[in-house]
Amino acid sequence: MPALTALSEAFGLGIDYDVFDWGADQWLATGTGLPPGAIDRLARDYGAVFLGALGDPRIPDMAHGRDILLGLRKGLDLYVNHRPIVLEHGVIDLYRENTQGLYAGVGGSITRSGTVTVAIDECVYTRETVERFVRFCLARLRRRGHRKVTLVHKSNAVPNTGTLWQDVFRRELEAFPELTGSEEYVDSFCYHLVRDPTPYEGVLASNLFGDIISDIGAALMGGLGLAASASICPESDFALFEPVHGSAPDIAGKGTANPYAAAMSLGLLLDHFGHADAAALLRSCVTETAGGEAATPDLGGKGGTQQFMDQVMTLLEQKL
Amino acid sequence: MPALTALSEAFGLGIDYDVFDWGADQWLATGTGLPPGAIDRLARDYGAVFLGALGDPRIPDMAHGRDILLGLRKGLDLYVNHRPIVLEHGVIDLYRENTQGLYAGVGGSITRSGTVTVAIDECVYTRETVERFVRFCLARLRRRGHRKVTLVHKSNAVPNTGTLWQDVFRRELEAFPELTGSEEYVDSFCYHLVRDPTPYEGVLASNLFGDIISDIGAALMGGLGLAASASICPESDFALFEPVHGSAPDIAGKGTANPYAAAMSLGLLLDHFGHADAAALLRSCVTETAGGEAATPDLGGKGGTQQFMDQVMTLLEQKL
Ligand SMILES: CC(C)[C@H](C(=O)O)[C@@H](O)C(=O)O
Ligand SMILES: CC(C)[C@H](C(=O)O)[C@@H](O)C(=O)O
Repeated sequence: MPALTALSEAFGLGIDYDVFDWGADQWLATGTGLPPGAIDRLARDYGAVFLGALGDPRIPDMAHGRDILLGLRKGLDLYVNHRPIVLEHGVIDLYRENTQGLYAGVGGSITRSGTVTVAIDECVYTRETVERFVRFCLARLRRRGHRKVTLVHKSNAVPNTGTLWQDVFRRELEAFPELTGSEEYVDSFCYHLVRDPTPYEGVLASNLFGDIISDIGAALMGGLGLAASASICPESDFALFEPVHGSAPDIAGKGTANPYAAAMSLGLLLDHFGHADAAALLRSCVTETAGGEAATPDLGGKGGTQQFMDQVMTLLEQKL
Repeated sequence: MPALTALSEAFGLGIDYDVFDWGADQWLATGTGLPPGAIDRLARDYGAVFLGALGDPRIPDMAHGRDILLGLRKGLDLYVNHRPIVLEHGVIDLYRENTQGLYAGVGGSITRSGTVTVAIDECVYTRETVERFVRFCLARLRRRGHRKVTLVHKSNAVPNTGTLWQDVFRRELEAFPELTGSEEYVDSFCYHLVRDPTPYEGVLASNLFGDIISDIGAALMGGLGLAASASICPESDFALFEPVHGSAPDIAGKGTANPYAAAMSLGLLLDHFGHADAAALLRSCVTETAGGEAATPDLGGKGGTQQFMDQVMTLLEQKL
């Protein structure tokens, strides 16, 4: 990551990194995404993970992606997933709960003569999990200067978890008089987000709803190639940074994958470590590149992944 | 419903109806949405229900709406919910499973000293339910001349129900060589739908995903005021027709609620009873009205609910 090295040296950030090759090839060779002991080692020796995009057409249902991503999120208890939706009018800060809900991994199937006859996936939330998430996010939103926060839920049809979320949201909000809360059904929220996202500032969502909303947000931003994401455990301060998108297997080998979201995720990493200046500089170089000739085709440019990052480096060197 | 009466008389359809006042007032007075025996009576004496929009600010979480709507859907086993997404390039036929999934009503909470500590909503699907739904929808899509059908799922994170749906979808598709199937994760599907809906023709979704997708579809159509919906039990032929939207309590009493979706749902009712001519005539009058002065403000017109329907009646009388 030459950009990270250059910024670290210029700003004296002292950020060092190692590269782990935990991709589709390892999965195909060993059947595991995260090697044994990976979680402990990361937690002990590192402060953050910067993750490339996952997804490989050789592996059905992204089994390796699920194993690695969900393994890291749960294993490192990265319960806050921040996915900024950057729009012309401003930024909507979407926070997605990252450990429970339908992603809790609770459920199973009843099989008769080798055929599944009943399948169950449980959406599970504990009050403690919702509380720590909501509390952290409200504090974050206040710090970021927001005035409004929307809880996305579906308590009219999915009542048990829905009303738990509503109850926690209302109680926790009492400690934040600066914030005005509102609540919206997920279907209605998606409708309004597509029609006119401008009224939204902060948005809190459970795991699955956050997953869907972040993709709609990416569509509004102009493409999945633009959506960055940070997963944080506030207690340990460990964090994971990654683009929201997958590995774009449809354009594999063409060298045209847009590195914007990955570069912006690096910006979130710099922010996380308290290096706001370096993050701002990186962001300005990435934005400038995205608007120019070196941008990838999906952004209307003539470049590829390499030209894009070369141009970011050129700009960085000029401005450092 | 003067439009229905006029059409029934002109075309000799012999459609008769009764009006039941099962709204918010009844809920507030009696605490029930569907009166005792309602389901049996409907199933015995009627062939369809035409439902006005639900929702009342006096009732938290639309409890009456849930009671009535979900009660009718489940009580009458209306397992196929057809929500056409009418776009400039054509119609995307969205079919939503209407009885199980996260709407199965299975789950509960653990409470300690009056506080919920764990909440669970189960997403449950039986193979039989998925099979009858998929089979019916594929036949419908073929009859409607579609060539492509997309299954929306989330098997990478919600694996038990996700893989059951995939398995059934692939098996049932074998009997429909005219249809090309594809599968997409719900987040990615929503992303692509917002970016460019033109490649989609038929879409099959579980209950919650269909709920969300139909609202996104309504946003793409130009507003919830335009989205019509039919819920069908193919075996009994009983069906329920309703706009996708709620009662728009924000404009209650203003007389400006858009009756387009309700009128289009009446069109679906006429279709259902095999009266394609009457349905087409109604649709043409509604579309013409929607483009003119008598349209409601959300459509850019100067009319209200009453003027809109008066104009539809005027056009109907001219054309009958
Ligand atoms: C790959 C998949 C399991 C993951 C998710 O559903 O969380 C992805 O869609 C995301 O949004 O990070
Ligand atoms: C009112 C609510 C329970 C209902 C649903 O979630 O199905 C509505 O949103 C719909 O789409 O018909």
